[in-house]
Amino acid sequence: MFVDDGGVLMRVLGIDPGLTRCGIGVVQGEPGRPLSMVDVGVVRTAADLPVAQRLVQIETGLEAWIEEHRPDAVAVERVFAQHNVRTVMGTAQASGIAMVVAARRGLPVAMHTPSEVKAAVSGSGRADKAQVAAMVTRLLRLDAAPKPADASDALALAITHVWRGAARTRLEEAVARAGAAR
Amino acid sequence: MFVDDGGVLMRVLGIDPGLTRCGIGVVQGEPGRPLSMVDVGVVRTAADLPVAQRLVQIETGLEAWIEEHRPDAVAVERVFAQHNVRTVMGTAQASGIAMVVAARRGLPVAMHTPSEVKAAVSGSGRADKAQVAAMVTRLLRLDAAPKPADASDALALAITHVWRGAARTRLEEAVARAGAAR
Repeated sequence: MFVDDGGVLMRVLGIDPGLTRCGIGVVQGEPGRPLSMVDVGVVRTAADLPVAQRLVQIETGLEAWIEEHRPDAVAVERVFAQHNVRTVMGTAQASGIAMVVAARRGLPVAMHTPSEVKAAVSGSGRADKAQVAAMVTRLLRLDAAPKPADASDALALAITHVWRGAARTRLEEAVARAGAAR
Repeated sequence: MFVDDGGVLMRVLGIDPGLTRCGIGVVQGEPGRPLSMVDVGVVRTAADLPVAQRLVQIETGLEAWIEEHRPDAVAVERVFAQHNVRTVMGTAQASGIAMVVAARRGLPVAMHTPSEVKAAVSGSGRADKAQVAAMVTRLLRLDAAPKPADASDALALAITHVWRGAARTRLEEAVARAGAAR
Protein backbone atom coordinates (compact mmCIF):
# COMPACT_ATOMS: atom_id res chain seq x y z
CA MET A 1 0.00 0.00 0.00
CA PHE A 2 1.34 3.39 -0.91
CA VAL A 3 0.87 6.03 1.72
CA ASP A 4 1.73 9.60 0.82
CA ASP A 5 3.13 10.80 4.12
CA GLY A 6 4.19 14.21 2.85
CA GLY A 7 2.17 17.21 3.97
CA VAL A 8 0.37 19.55 1.65
CA LEU A 9 1.77 23.01 1.12
CA MET A 10 -0.77 25.31 2.71
CA ARG A 11 -1.14 29.08 2.76
CA VAL A 12 -2.96 30.38 5.84
CA LEU A 13 -4.10 33.92 6.58
CA GLY A 14 -4.27 34.51 10.33
CA ILE A 15 -6.40 37.30 11.79
CA ASP A 16 -6.07 38.72 15.31
CA PRO A 17 -9.37 40.63 15.36
CA GLY A 18 -9.82 44.08 16.86
CA LEU A 19 -11.78 47.23 16.15
CA THR A 20 -8.75 49.56 16.33
CA ARG A 21 -6.21 47.11 14.90
CA CYS A 22 -6.74 43.77 13.15
CA GLY A 23 -3.42 41.98 12.94
CA ILE A 24 -2.96 39.97 9.74
CA GLY A 25 -0.28 37.41 9.00
CA VAL A 26 0.08 35.15 5.99
CA VAL A 27 2.20 32.03 6.38
CA GLN A 28 2.93 29.23 3.97
CA GLY A 29 4.20 25.83 4.85
CA GLU A 30 3.69 22.22 5.67
CA PRO A 31 4.46 20.31 8.84
CA GLY A 32 8.05 19.24 9.30
CA ARG A 33 9.42 21.78 6.85
CA PRO A 34 10.55 25.35 7.49
CA LEU A 35 7.63 27.78 7.32
CA SER A 36 7.77 30.99 5.39
CA MET A 37 6.14 34.35 5.99
CA VAL A 38 4.29 35.64 2.92
CA ASP A 39 3.16 38.99 4.35
CA VAL A 40 2.25 40.66 7.62
CA GLY A 41 0.44 43.85 8.55
CA VAL A 42 -2.45 45.51 10.27
CA VAL A 43 -5.86 46.86 9.25
CA ARG A 44 -6.50 49.98 11.32
CA THR A 45 -9.64 52.03 11.84
CA ALA A 46 -10.01 55.48 13.39
CA ALA A 47 -11.50 55.56 16.89
CA ASP A 48 -13.55 58.69 16.10
CA LEU A 49 -15.61 56.99 13.37
CA PRO A 50 -18.96 55.32 14.13
CA VAL A 51 -18.53 51.61 14.84
CA ALA A 52 -20.58 50.61 11.77
CA GLN A 53 -18.17 52.48 9.49
CA ARG A 54 -15.16 51.03 11.26
CA LEU A 55 -16.52 47.54 10.67
CA VAL A 56 -17.02 48.31 6.98
CA GLN A 57 -13.37 49.46 6.81
CA ILE A 58 -12.31 46.19 8.43
CA GLU A 59 -14.38 44.26 5.90
CA THR A 60 -12.82 46.19 3.00
CA GLY A 61 -9.31 45.76 4.41
CA LEU A 62 -9.66 42.01 4.97
CA GLU A 63 -11.20 41.56 1.51
CA ALA A 64 -8.10 43.19 -0.01
CA TRP A 65 -5.74 40.93 1.96
CA ILE A 66 -7.59 37.77 0.95
CA GLU A 67 -7.85 38.96 -2.65
CA GLU A 68 -4.10 39.59 -2.80
CA HIS A 69 -2.86 36.47 -1.02
CA ARG A 70 -5.48 33.84 -1.93
CA PRO A 71 -5.07 31.74 1.24
CA ASP A 72 -6.24 28.12 1.43
CA ALA A 73 -7.71 28.77 4.87
CA VAL A 74 -8.32 31.58 7.33
CA ALA A 75 -7.58 31.26 11.05
CA VAL A 76 -9.24 33.69 13.46
CA GLU A 77 -8.46 34.08 17.16
CA ARG A 78 -11.34 32.86 19.26
CA VAL A 79 -12.55 35.68 21.49
CA PHE A 80 -13.90 35.05 24.97
CA ALA A 81 -16.40 37.15 26.88
CA GLN A 82 -14.13 37.01 29.94
CA HIS A 83 -11.59 39.25 28.19
CA ASN A 84 -11.35 43.00 28.68
CA VAL A 85 -15.01 44.01 28.95
CA ARG A 86 -14.40 47.49 27.57
CA THR A 87 -13.09 46.26 24.21
CA VAL A 88 -14.57 42.76 23.93
CA MET A 89 -17.70 43.77 22.03
CA GLY A 90 -15.71 45.51 19.29
CA THR A 91 -13.33 42.56 19.13
CA ALA A 92 -16.24 40.13 18.81
CA GLN A 93 -17.83 42.24 16.07
CA ALA A 94 -14.53 42.42 14.18
CA SER A 95 -14.11 38.64 14.50
CA GLY A 96 -17.63 38.16 13.08
CA ILE A 97 -16.71 40.29 10.06
CA ALA A 98 -13.49 38.30 9.59
CA MET A 99 -15.40 35.01 9.64
CA VAL A 100 -18.01 36.21 7.15
CA VAL A 101 -15.46 37.66 4.71
CA ALA A 102 -13.72 34.27 4.58
CA ALA A 103 -16.76 31.96 4.76
CA ARG A 104 -18.76 33.66 2.01
CA ARG A 105 -15.84 32.97 -0.36
CA GLY A 106 -16.04 29.33 0.61
CA LEU A 107 -12.74 29.45 2.49
CA PRO A 108 -12.41 27.15 5.51
CA VAL A 109 -12.49 29.22 8.72
CA ALA A 110 -10.81 27.88 11.84
CA MET A 111 -10.86 29.36 15.32
CA HIS A 112 -7.93 28.86 17.68
CA THR A 113 -7.81 30.04 21.28
CA PRO A 114 -4.91 32.13 22.57
CA SER A 115 -3.69 29.20 24.67
CA GLU A 116 -3.81 26.81 21.71
CA VAL A 117 -1.68 29.28 19.76
CA LYS A 118 0.78 29.73 22.63
CA ALA A 119 1.07 25.97 23.06
CA ALA A 120 1.55 25.39 19.34
CA VAL A 121 4.36 27.89 18.81
CA SER A 122 6.11 27.79 22.19
CA GLY A 123 5.19 24.47 23.73
CA SER A 124 3.36 26.12 26.63
CA GLY A 125 -0.22 27.41 26.79
CA ARG A 126 0.95 29.93 29.38
CA ALA A 127 3.75 31.49 27.35
CA ASP A 128 3.90 35.27 27.54
CA LYS A 129 3.68 37.69 24.61
CA ALA A 130 7.47 38.05 24.38
CA GLN A 131 7.99 34.28 24.16
CA VAL A 132 5.37 33.95 21.43
CA ALA A 133 6.93 36.82 19.47
CA ALA A 134 10.39 35.27 19.86
CA MET A 135 9.16 31.90 18.57
CA VAL A 136 7.34 33.52 15.62
CA THR A 137 10.57 35.33 14.73
CA ARG A 138 12.57 32.12 14.96
CA LEU A 139 10.09 29.84 13.17
CA LEU A 140 9.71 32.24 10.25
CA ARG A 141 13.45 33.06 10.27
CA LEU A 142 12.83 36.81 10.52
CA ASP A 143 15.45 39.40 11.49
CA ALA A 144 13.21 40.94 14.15
CA ALA A 145 9.81 40.35 15.75
CA PRO A 146 7.02 41.87 13.64
CA LYS A 147 5.36 44.93 15.21
CA PRO A 148 2.80 45.67 16.52
CA ALA A 149 1.99 42.67 18.74
CA ASP A 150 -1.30 42.12 16.83
CA ALA A 151 0.71 41.41 13.65
CA SER A 152 2.96 38.96 15.47
CA ASP A 153 -0.09 37.28 17.04
CA ALA A 154 -1.70 36.91 13.61
CA LEU A 155 1.42 35.13 12.33
CA ALA A 156 1.36 32.83 15.38
CA LEU A 157 -2.27 31.98 14.57
CA ALA A 158 -1.39 31.18 10.97
CA ILE A 159 1.55 28.98 12.06
CA THR A 160 -0.74 27.17 14.50
CA HIS A 161 -3.23 26.51 11.75
CA VAL A 162 -0.65 25.22 9.27
CA TRP A 163 0.39 22.66 11.90
CA ARG A 164 -3.00 21.81 13.37
CA GLY A 165 -4.85 22.01 10.07
CA ALA A 166 -2.35 19.75 8.40
CA ALA A 167 -2.53 17.26 11.28
CA ARG A 168 -6.31 17.21 10.98
CA THR A 169 -6.13 16.80 7.21
CA ARG A 170 -3.78 13.82 7.59
CA LEU A 171 -6.08 12.31 10.20
CA GLU A 172 -9.10 12.72 7.95
CA GLU A 173 -7.18 11.18 5.06
CA ALA A 174 -6.13 8.26 7.24
CA VAL A 175 -9.75 7.71 8.31
CA ALA A 176 -10.84 7.89 4.66
CA ARG A 177 -8.15 5.37 3.66
CA ALA A 178 -9.13 3.04 6.49
CA GLY A 179 -12.74 3.26 5.34
CA ALA A 180 -11.83 2.65 1.70
CA ALA A 181 -9.68 -0.41 2.65
CA ARG A 182 -12.56 -2.21 4.29
CA MET B 1 -40.10 82.90 9.56
CA PHE B 2 -41.70 79.71 8.31
CA VAL B 3 -40.97 76.63 10.36
CA ASP B 4 -42.02 73.30 8.97
CA ASP B 5 -42.98 71.54 12.17
CA GLY B 6 -44.24 68.39 10.46
CA GLY B 7 -42.09 65.31 10.78
CA VAL B 8 -40.70 63.35 7.88
CA LEU B 9 -42.21 59.99 7.07
CA MET B 10 -39.48 57.51 7.90
CA ARG B 11 -39.15 53.77 7.37
CA VAL B 12 -36.93 52.05 9.91
CA LEU B 13 -35.72 48.45 9.96
CA GLY B 14 -35.02 47.31 13.52
CA ILE B 15 -32.74 44.36 14.24
CA ASP B 16 -32.58 42.45 17.51
CA PRO B 17 -29.33 40.56 16.82
CA GLY B 18 -28.71 36.94 17.73
CA LEU B 19 -26.91 33.94 16.29
CA THR B 20 -29.89 31.59 16.56
CA ARG B 21 -32.60 34.19 15.86
CA CYS B 22 -32.29 37.75 14.58
CA GLY B 23 -35.58 39.55 15.12
CA ILE B 24 -36.47 41.98 12.33
CA GLY B 25 -39.22 44.59 12.39
CA VAL B 26 -39.98 47.27 9.81
CA VAL B 27 -41.96 50.28 10.97
CA GLN B 28 -43.02 53.39 9.10
CA GLY B 29 -44.12 56.63 10.66
CA GLU B 30 -43.44 60.09 11.90
CA PRO B 31 -43.71 61.51 15.42
CA GLY B 32 -47.19 62.47 16.56
CA ARG B 33 -48.93 60.29 13.98
CA PRO B 34 -50.01 56.66 14.25
CA LEU B 35 -47.18 54.31 13.30
CA SER B 36 -47.61 51.40 10.94
CA MET B 37 -45.95 48.02 10.80
CA VAL B 38 -44.58 47.18 7.35
CA ASP B 39 -43.29 43.69 8.09
CA VAL B 40 -41.94 41.57 10.91
CA GLY B 41 -40.04 38.28 11.09
CA VAL B 42 -36.96 36.41 12.11
CA VAL B 43 -33.76 35.24 10.43
CA ARG B 44 -32.87 31.86 11.91
CA THR B 45 -29.70 29.81 11.67
CA ALA B 46 -29.13 26.19 12.63
CA ALA B 47 -27.17 25.61 15.83
CA ASP B 48 -25.30 22.65 14.31
CA LEU B 49 -23.64 24.73 11.58
CA PRO B 50 -20.19 26.30 12.08
CA VAL B 51 -20.45 29.88 13.38
CA ALA B 52 -18.86 31.34 10.24
CA GLN B 53 -21.60 29.79 8.09
CA ARG B 54 -24.32 30.95 10.46
CA LEU B 55 -23.00 34.50 10.19
CA VAL B 56 -23.05 34.26 6.39
CA GLN B 57 -26.70 33.12 6.58
CA ILE B 58 -27.50 36.10 8.79
CA GLU B 59 -25.78 38.39 6.30
CA THR B 60 -27.77 36.90 3.40
CA GLY B 61 -31.03 37.09 5.34
CA LEU B 62 -30.56 40.71 6.39
CA GLU B 63 -29.55 41.69 2.84
CA ALA B 64 -32.84 40.26 1.57
CA TRP B 65 -34.88 42.19 4.16
CA ILE B 66 -33.15 45.48 3.37
CA GLU B 67 -33.43 44.83 -0.35
CA GLU B 68 -37.15 44.20 -0.06
CA HIS B 69 -38.09 47.02 2.32
CA ARG B 70 -35.60 49.77 1.43
CA PRO B 71 -35.53 51.38 4.89
CA ASP B 72 -34.29 54.95 5.45
CA ALA B 73 -32.36 53.84 8.51
CA VAL B 74 -31.43 50.69 10.42
CA ALA B 75 -31.61 50.45 14.21
CA VAL B 76 -29.65 47.72 15.99
CA GLU B 77 -29.90 46.79 19.64
CA ARG B 78 -26.72 47.72 21.49
CA VAL B 79 -25.25 44.61 23.09
CA PHE B 80 -23.40 44.73 26.39
CA ALA B 81 -20.67 42.40 27.56
CA GLN B 82 -22.47 42.07 30.91
CA HIS B 83 -25.27 40.08 29.25
CA ASN B 84 -25.49 36.31 29.21
CA VAL B 85 -21.83 35.29 28.81
CA ARG B 86 -22.68 32.04 27.03
CA THR B 87 -24.42 33.75 24.11
CA VAL B 88 -22.99 37.26 24.14
CA MET B 89 -20.16 36.58 21.68
CA GLY B 90 -22.54 35.24 19.02
CA THR B 91 -24.90 38.15 19.65
CA ALA B 92 -22.03 40.63 19.28
CA GLN B 93 -20.88 38.95 16.06
CA ALA B 94 -24.43 39.02 14.65
CA SER B 95 -24.75 42.71 15.57
CA GLY B 96 -21.47 43.42 13.76
CA ILE B 97 -22.84 41.75 10.62
CA ALA B 98 -26.08 43.76 10.90
CA MET B 99 -24.14 47.02 11.15
CA VAL B 100 -21.92 46.22 8.17
CA VAL B 101 -24.81 45.12 5.94
CA ALA B 102 -26.52 48.49 6.55
CA ALA B 103 -23.46 50.77 6.62
CA ARG B 104 -21.90 49.50 3.40
CA ARG B 105 -25.11 50.51 1.59
CA GLY B 106 -24.74 53.99 3.04
CA LEU B 107 -27.73 53.54 5.36
CA PRO B 108 -27.60 55.37 8.70
CA VAL B 109 -27.07 52.87 11.52
CA ALA B 110 -28.28 53.72 15.02
CA MET B 111 -27.73 51.75 18.20
CA HIS B 112 -30.27 51.87 21.01
CA THR B 113 -29.86 50.19 24.38
CA PRO B 114 -32.57 47.89 25.75
CA SER B 115 -33.46 50.48 28.42
CA GLU B 116 -33.73 53.27 25.84
CA VAL B 117 -36.14 51.08 23.89
CA LYS B 118 -38.19 50.20 26.98
CA ALA B 119 -38.37 53.86 28.01
CA ALA B 120 -39.36 54.98 24.50
CA VAL B 121 -42.24 52.54 24.03
CA SER B 122 -43.50 52.13 27.62
CA GLY B 123 -42.32 55.22 29.49
CA SER B 124 -40.11 53.18 31.81
CA GLY B 125 -36.56 51.93 31.26
CA ARG B 126 -37.37 49.04 33.58
CA ALA B 127 -40.46 47.76 31.79
CA ASP B 128 -40.61 43.99 31.45
CA LYS B 129 -40.86 42.02 28.20
CA ALA B 130 -44.64 41.67 28.46
CA GLN B 131 -45.15 45.42 28.86
CA VAL B 132 -42.95 46.17 25.87
CA ALA B 133 -44.80 43.60 23.74
CA ALA B 134 -48.16 45.04 24.86
CA MET B 135 -47.10 48.57 23.91
CA VAL B 136 -45.73 47.43 20.54
CA THR B 137 -49.06 45.74 19.85
CA ARG B 138 -50.99 48.87 20.84
CA LEU B 139 -48.75 51.40 19.05
CA LEU B 140 -48.85 49.45 15.79
CA ARG B 141 -52.57 48.60 16.24
CA LEU B 142 -51.95 44.87 15.86
CA ASP B 143 -54.42 42.14 16.80
CA ALA B 144 -51.85 40.26 18.85
CA ALA B 145 -48.25 40.62 20.01
CA PRO B 146 -45.80 39.45 17.32
CA LYS B 147 -44.00 36.22 18.16
CA PRO B 148 -41.26 35.33 18.96
CA ALA B 149 -40.09 37.98 21.46
CA ASP B 150 -37.14 38.80 19.20
CA ALA B 151 -39.55 39.95 16.49
CA SER B 152 -41.50 42.10 18.95
CA ASP B 153 -38.23 43.57 20.29
CA ALA B 154 -37.13 44.45 16.75
CA LEU B 155 -40.38 46.36 16.21
CA ALA B 156 -39.85 48.19 19.52
CA LEU B 157 -36.37 49.17 18.33
CA ALA B 158 -37.75 50.49 15.04
CA ILE B 159 -40.47 52.47 16.87
CA THR B 160 -37.82 53.94 19.19
CA HIS B 161 -35.76 55.01 16.23
CA VAL B 162 -38.65 56.63 14.37
CA TRP B 163 -39.26 58.75 17.47
CA ARG B 164 -35.69 59.43 18.53
CA GLY B 165 -34.35 59.73 14.98
CA ALA B 166 -37.06 62.21 14.09
CA ALA B 167 -36.38 64.22 17.26
CA ARG B 168 -32.70 64.36 16.40
CA THR B 169 -33.43 65.35 12.82
CA ARG B 170 -35.66 68.22 14.01
CA LEU B 171 -32.95 69.31 16.43
CA GLU B 172 -30.31 69.28 13.71
CA GLU B 173 -32.62 71.23 11.43
CA ALA B 174 -33.26 73.79 14.18
CA VAL B 175 -29.54 74.20 14.73
CA ALA B 176 -29.02 74.59 10.99
CA ARG B 177 -31.79 77.22 10.83
CA ALA B 178 -30.33 79.08 13.80
CA GLY B 179 -26.94 79.07 12.08
CA ALA B 180 -28.42 80.26 8.76
CA ALA B 181 -30.34 83.07 10.52
CA ARG B 182 -27.20 84.66 11.97
